[in-house]
Amino acid sequence: MGIEAIQTLASRFARLPGIGNKTALRLAYHVLDMSDTSARELAGAIIDAREKVRYCSVCGGYTDVEPCALCADRSRKRDVICVVAEAKDIIALEKMREFHGQYHALGGVISPMDGVGPDDLRIRELLGRIDDGGITEVIVATNPDVEGEATASYLARIIKQKGVKVTRIAHGIPIGGNLEYIDEMTLFKAVEGRREI
Amino acid sequence: MGIEAIQTLASRFARLPGIGNKTALRLAYHVLDMSDTSARELAGAIIDAREKVRYCSVCGGYTDVEPCALCADRSRKRDVICVVAEAKDIIALEKMREFHGQYHALGGVISPMDGVGPDDLRIRELLGRIDDGGITEVIVATNPDVEGEATASYLARIIKQKGVKVTRIAHGIPIGGNLEYIDEMTLFKAVEGRREI
Repeated sequence: MGIEAIQTLASRFARLPGIGNKTALRLAYHVLDMSDTSARELAGAIIDAREKVRYCSVCGGYTDVEPCALCADRSRKRDVICVVAEAKDIIALEKMREFHGQYHALGGVISPMDGVGPDDLRIRELLGRIDDGGITEVIVATNPDVEGEATASYLARIIKQKGVKVTRIAHGIPIGGNLEYIDEMTLFKAVEGRREI
Repeated sequence: MGIEAIQTLASRFARLPGIGNKTALRLAYHVLDMSDTSARELAGAIIDAREKVRYCSVCGGYTDVEPCALCADRSRKRDVICVVAEAKDIIALEKMREFHGQYHALGGVISPMDGVGPDDLRIRELLGRIDDGGITEVIVATNPDVEGEATASYLARIIKQKGVKVTRIAHGIPIGGNLEYIDEMTLFKAVEGRREI
């Protein structure tokens, strides 16, 4: 059955995470009912986000300027780096408004099952920032799952060799949970209760 | 906190039905992780659907040709019209593959609460099609809710005056349900068990 343009749109929506076939079709119908302006705004926002958003060359976070606003902010502490797996985790931590240091996104976690080793992550860049000096503490804020813990252990081992304190955010975060979706208070407790590894 | 292009995209996603703020942000991140091609395909499909999909001047269903493929199909029975509230309901009924007559989408239902009266719907067009002759039965397949039933009663009253049989799809459809999401078998039972009103 079909108007091809509707089916195509529904199939594109169905490729998004958490969107099943029925929801995708419902979204497609909604687009048909939208004003022309709203539809163009939605399409434009997709293209715009793709074109404007880059990774900061310093911290690896999302940014539309180089370096990002957080790295460029002179009022932030420069002796602490908080290491996260993904760029989006920086946005989650910033919502907490309680951490005022630097960030470093690895672009993933060590995962032998997926063929991701230390060299596939932005660990070299992290070590470079530490070698530049002035860093007294590295907070490892990867997710508390197997890969996140393995990555934390790996980082602790090589960074401690450089005489820099390495801490891990506390397990206020539920095991198996996803850092991106935790509420600000839990994130705050997790950073506050961090312990040396 | 914010890269504006990400926030803008998330806010556009959040305007879609059933998409909350967290899901919208997750979709926005997904778009950033997509290939350039996939992102352009998604944006393009939105624009494309808006530009190509129109309402058929005969039945009021979605189409990209004029008249639509269903109205133009000479193998379909021309003596039965199935009346639905929305264009998308035609697609739902066609999935059943058991009805081979004509369709007519009203573009809504009579709803005094929302200020929608008979003149705001494509009822005049429906009566015109009946007056053209050759129609022996009108099946009213509006949703089995208050407005859908009121619309069915209204249509039955004025169409029966023209000596045409008016039937209502059976209450195989759960009361309060939405025709768009019913499985094909239930829809088939509902059409099969239709009764005169």
